[in-house]
Amino acid sequence: MRVVVAVDSFKGSLTTREAGEAVAAGVRAAAPGADVVVLPVADGGEGTAACLADAWGTRLREQTTTDALGRRCEAAWGLSADGSTAVVEVAAASGLPGVQDAPARPREASTLGTGALLAAALDAGAQEVVLCLGGSATTDGGAGLLAGLGARFLDADGEELPPGGGALARLARLDLTDLHPRARAARWRLACDVTNPLLGPRGAAAVYGPQKGATPEDVAALEAGLGRLASVLEEATGVAVADRPGCGAAGGAPATVVAVLGASLEPGAPLVLAEAGLPQALAAGADLVVTGEGSCDPQSLQGKVVDGVARAVRAEPACAAAPVVVLAGRVAVPPAELAAAGVDAAFSIAPGAATLDDLQTGAAALLADLAERVTRLARRTGGSGRATGTVPS
Amino acid sequence: MRVVVAVDSFKGSLTTREAGEAVAAGVRAAAPGADVVVLPVADGGEGTAACLADAWGTRLREQTTTDALGRRCEAAWGLSADGSTAVVEVAAASGLPGVQDAPARPREASTLGTGALLAAALDAGAQEVVLCLGGSATTDGGAGLLAGLGARFLDADGEELPPGGGALARLARLDLTDLHPRARAARWRLACDVTNPLLGPRGAAAVYGPQKGATPEDVAALEAGLGRLASVLEEATGVAVADRPGCGAAGGAPATVVAVLGASLEPGAPLVLAEAGLPQALAAGADLVVTGEGSCDPQSLQGKVVDGVARAVRAEPACAAAPVVVLAGRVAVPPAELAAAGVDAAFSIAPGAATLDDLQTGAAALLADLAERVTRLARRTGGSGRATGTVPS
Repeated sequence: MRVVVAVDSFKGSLTTREAGEAVAAGVRAAAPGADVVVLPVADGGEGTAACLADAWGTRLREQTTTDALGRRCEAAWGLSADGSTAVVEVAAASGLPGVQDAPARPREASTLGTGALLAAALDAGAQEVVLCLGGSATTDGGAGLLAGLGARFLDADGEELPPGGGALARLARLDLTDLHPRARAARWRLACDVTNPLLGPRGAAAVYGPQKGATPEDVAALEAGLGRLASVLEEATGVAVADRPGCGAAGGAPATVVAVLGASLEPGAPLVLAEAGLPQALAAGADLVVTGEGSCDPQSLQGKVVDGVARAVRAEPACAAAPVVVLAGRVAVPPAELAAAGVDAAFSIAPGAATLDDLQTGAAALLADLAERVTRLARRTGGSGRATGTVPS
Repeated sequence: MRVVVAVDSFKGSLTTREAGEAVAAGVRAAAPGADVVVLPVADGGEGTAACLADAWGTRLREQTTTDALGRRCEAAWGLSADGSTAVVEVAAASGLPGVQDAPARPREASTLGTGALLAAALDAGAQEVVLCLGGSATTDGGAGLLAGLGARFLDADGEELPPGGGALARLARLDLTDLHPRARAARWRLACDVTNPLLGPRGAAAVYGPQKGATPEDVAALEAGLGRLASVLEEATGVAVADRPGCGAAGGAPATVVAVLGASLEPGAPLVLAEAGLPQALAAGADLVVTGEGSCDPQSLQGKVVDGVARAVRAEPACAAAPVVVLAGRVAVPPAELAAAGVDAAFSIAPGAATLDDLQTGAAALLADLAERVTRLARRTGGSGRATGTVPS
């Protein structure tokens, strides 16, 4: 019996690795000889770098850089074992949590510190960079990212602008002379689950600015800066980013990377699942695929890990008969909707009446127990490894 | 896809019929063309008469009789559609709930009222009587039962004894002259899940007497009465009931029926499952068998409905590949123990953190939802009715 396990973290209780190992323990209890493949998975949000480093069998690299307000900080990023692929979370250096101890300065907040991580990734030899958007404290249109890679954002006098989206209103020219020599050759993949454009009422400043402490005046200033950035980028590269869906993510961070480096914007979960090796794991076939997360709700079927795993299984001919089962702390999706998304069944780890605290505290054991029951059922009904035991009557 | 549903009641929320129909609704939602057979089931305890009447497609018969203290009361019993089989619960007429409004009189409490129901069953033509023990307020060794069927319990002066176990200490002779003419020809089956003997420290008076209000003096008096009864029964019939396991059930009620009428003592759940038609339903084969109850705990695997269903499935060659799934309010048995009992998996209806009240109030909907998920999984993995839908990626 071959079982592929790709379970998201259970927020507040289990990492993706812990959840996966709990499931694997349950599977092995039910089917001792089973071939169990555990893939750490994530949806492109927080924890994705740790997940991919784990999937690659490497450790996160800690690096000194600067936070969104330019203060020295440590941030971690991941590199595959062969050095070819890097994963960086914008939130690692330029995230809101890192600057919540200080008054918000939304016009000055910059992704420069993340740019330094990207430069380090290229220095390390990465030919592909997965950049996870989301959670940023910035609205600089990714100017800091590109500055960290050597670009210079200049005013009409040829002076370099200070960091932050506010200063971009004075942007006159982009100087790419000193751009990192490997930047353009690398493949840039942005994990992005929003469709907001860079500018306008659904844009980065208007929608997300206030969450980052921007007053209405700040929003207007940032909108002006991002508008100017879009114009200069289009002049310099011929690429229009103002209206492109998704360029409003992470304070407009995609703008520079899309225009200058040809980055692709991709839904997070499928991107991460592919990097974690799910397609290869499924290509070898499976008798059961287990996915899951803390709360399986309608959002889970909108591009999250559960949805991504189900789609990957259904797209793999070798897994045509493989049941996809979701194990979750909470199941709040009607069975028919699960079925429409390619999920055969979802079960809660709750063994009966229980508090959230009970479920979180006991999550690993409850998840293993549930996985064992599901595996026994799949074994009984499945073609391979059919249970043969009988009970005397 | 053929699905056999045999779910016990969810105490406090669903009858066996309601639980079965909820499961059936879920199964049909997952497999619209499925052949779903719902069997009302019980374990020989409270609700068994209603369950069997339902399984037989008949209604309970209300009859005026007397309670354990000799007061007029109404009690219900069941008769199969062809009139051949009756089901009577000792607790219906002679139960504790019916006399809890009065001070306990353990020495006088009698099963005479149940005897009247048994006589009515024979009058109606029953050739087989299922008598469910348990829940009685009596310790009369079944003297009342047999008196209701026409037997006379006489003292040394040939005077008929008053009702109750206490008077039996003066029992000298049993007069069976007026025994119901069909009593001996009928097949008497006693649903009994205890192994206590009639007499001694594990006997009816010593163990169950105090639960029925007996003081130590009462227990001694009842023990003396039951001892005398056993002697007289053995003299009259040659059958020794004093040490027979199970004769201590229901205040010793089996004693008379075993000795005089040749009754068999049988574990309740298998007896009721057989009467409900489970063996016939399974003989036609099944792709999935669903059982369950409010709380699936270690006791469930000790002769209760869940255990009985699993054994029946495993004993039926036509169901060799049928998964047995338990759906319950609470699952408190390790998967390996479930598997050893022939249960492939057990799932709680809890969709996540929830109070007992949440689960009881929402039981029908939660059970249907869970059954739908389990059926979808079984369909995916099973040979028949394999799901063929695919999801665009």
